[in-house]
Amino acid sequence: MDFPLPEAVVEAVARRVATDLGYPAWDDDATCPPLAEAFAARMEARYGWPADPAHVRAFTDVNQALQVLLDVTTSAGDAVATHVPAYDPFLATIAGMGRRLLPIPVAADGSFALPAEPAAVLLLVNPHNPTGRSYTRAELESLAHYAERHGSLVIADEIHADLTYAPARHIPFATILPERTVTLTSASKAFNLGGLRCAVAHLGARPVREALAARPAHIYGAPGVLAVDATIAAWRHGDPWLAEVMRVLDRNRRLVAGRLPSGAGHRTPDATYLAWIDFGVPDAAGFLLREARVLLSPGPRYGGAGTFARLNFATSAPILEEILARIGAAINRA
Amino acid sequence: MDFPLPEAVVEAVARRVATDLGYPAWDDDATCPPLAEAFAARMEARYGWPADPAHVRAFTDVNQALQVLLDVTTSAGDAVATHVPAYDPFLATIAGMGRRLLPIPVAADGSFALPAEPAAVLLLVNPHNPTGRSYTRAELESLAHYAERHGSLVIADEIHADLTYAPARHIPFATILPERTVTLTSASKAFNLGGLRCAVAHLGARPVREALAARPAHIYGAPGVLAVDATIAAWRHGDPWLAEVMRVLDRNRRLVAGRLPSGAGHRTPDATYLAWIDFGVPDAAGFLLREARVLLSPGPRYGGAGTFARLNFATSAPILEEILARIGAAINRA
Repeated sequence: MDFPLPEAVVEAVARRVATDLGYPAWDDDATCPPLAEAFAARMEARYGWPADPAHVRAFTDVNQALQVLLDVTTSAGDAVATHVPAYDPFLATIAGMGRRLLPIPVAADGSFALPAEPAAVLLLVNPHNPTGRSYTRAELESLAHYAERHGSLVIADEIHADLTYAPARHIPFATILPERTVTLTSASKAFNLGGLRCAVAHLGARPVREALAARPAHIYGAPGVLAVDATIAAWRHGDPWLAEVMRVLDRNRRLVAGRLPSGAGHRTPDATYLAWIDFGVPDAAGFLLREARVLLSPGPRYGGAGTFARLNFATSAPILEEILARIGAAINRA
Repeated sequence: MDFPLPEAVVEAVARRVATDLGYPAWDDDATCPPLAEAFAARMEARYGWPADPAHVRAFTDVNQALQVLLDVTTSAGDAVATHVPAYDPFLATIAGMGRRLLPIPVAADGSFALPAEPAAVLLLVNPHNPTGRSYTRAELESLAHYAERHGSLVIADEIHADLTYAPARHIPFATILPERTVTLTSASKAFNLGGLRCAVAHLGARPVREALAARPAHIYGAPGVLAVDATIAAWRHGDPWLAEVMRVLDRNRRLVAGRLPSGAGHRTPDATYLAWIDFGVPDAAGFLLREARVLLSPGPRYGGAGTFARLNFATSAPILEEILARIGAAINRA
């Protein structure tokens, strides 16, 4: 995001640096109690989900957590079902770990049909990256039904939850199927803290808790004190900043929808600062880089067609208007 | 340590916070090139060791790195040889992972005899925690000979290297037996940055590099940007601060040696801010807490006798003098 950091985050980092950077009080406890408490308080307050701090485990990032979870709960060849297009590091994780991708194709209108085949893991990314969909309760219930029928573990990456636009409403999957679900999140997307390396896994599924408890206690490392302090500050004191950012992003998503070339395929996102767009030209990202000098992420990176590209619109209005004007001109010339 | 942070570290953190905390340029590269370069430059400049940045892997802490290394190179029941007394989290790691501790007992004069039995891993902590010994070239060569004879992997934790007092001189084990050695270090001890969670492993042993390359790329997580920036700042610009700290610590180690009760067993450390002391009373740490109201770490925690305790002397002279006066009075009363 092209926005300055929340003041609460800047202050939290400064406060810790002004004391010292030695071992924290929660050293050696992978639960990281102050982080777990801040996470649980936020889930309860924003989403009515009584997350259990005792089931929290800190990681450095959600892709790490996904790799750990797949490593301890599945084997090579096991199927991982996920909506496609999909977040590219997760596709790389599934392929790199020799798991079998079972795609749940998302149609242009955002709808999807569940596969007949079972999956060891249902990897749910909600809100969805790259399409910006926030799944409805009915959709989540259909996914829960699938997971129950097949005995799938649900890994719910809800890292974009705080970036959901009203009237859409984020529903934590753990409120629907608590005992099969591991929830992953981080302040990194909503508060622009990706470099900090601090993420949370809520291990609702007992077999996952047991599998992790059987591994060496520190083998997956831990987030540092500055990352933990910053995350807690964002979660506990960053909401005024976030509300302002959401006003900007909401205006931006409408600007994108209103200024796209006629004929472009696009569904206004319910959440995230990402627009998933079918420009109708081959290698759309390459074309737009060449002809409009704007850099979008190519659709095929997410398992989509080459006519698609993903636009990050978390920037100021003048820059976004310039981007959209250039794209429009290039597509109209094509 | 009871000392304020190096200014270079404070400035590096402030500089990053003033820009942004998004994904860094080295995102997704477990080598973490700027950290690897700073580490290699320091090893070359201070110790004449031409460490290879391409063999560096970033972890969040050295105990994590030890658990990862034991996990990928050994099996339950395999012997891990290490000097005893030993750093307690390492003892917990060896026991917790079901590896077999093969003790190398350290005598009161700091000398040791090698075991006849082979070990899958020689875990060398040099400078040594808790005794503060810096091993001589002859001693390191005897350890190298042992490792070669038995085909042991050497995991060399050299985290206290920068805290070595002249005329003792730290010799990286990797300069003696490069292709069997994994070196672990961090700026956390010398620069008091333990909470940051940033450590480095230099994988001199090819089988270890191959074993790690076969694991999922992000499963062990990564240090955050603030931790990496702070570590690089400490290593590249923190030496004037460190020189000043070493003057204080050098005075302190002499103060400890000079003020101990007569009859206390103690060898002045060659390195570290740790004094390993035989007070000659049972449960020495419990006794001193009760009778002197000073908190030392109990000897048995490190696999030592109850008459031993470990004193951290990284504090100011008035506080250390008070500590030593109280200890002396309590022991003399006993």
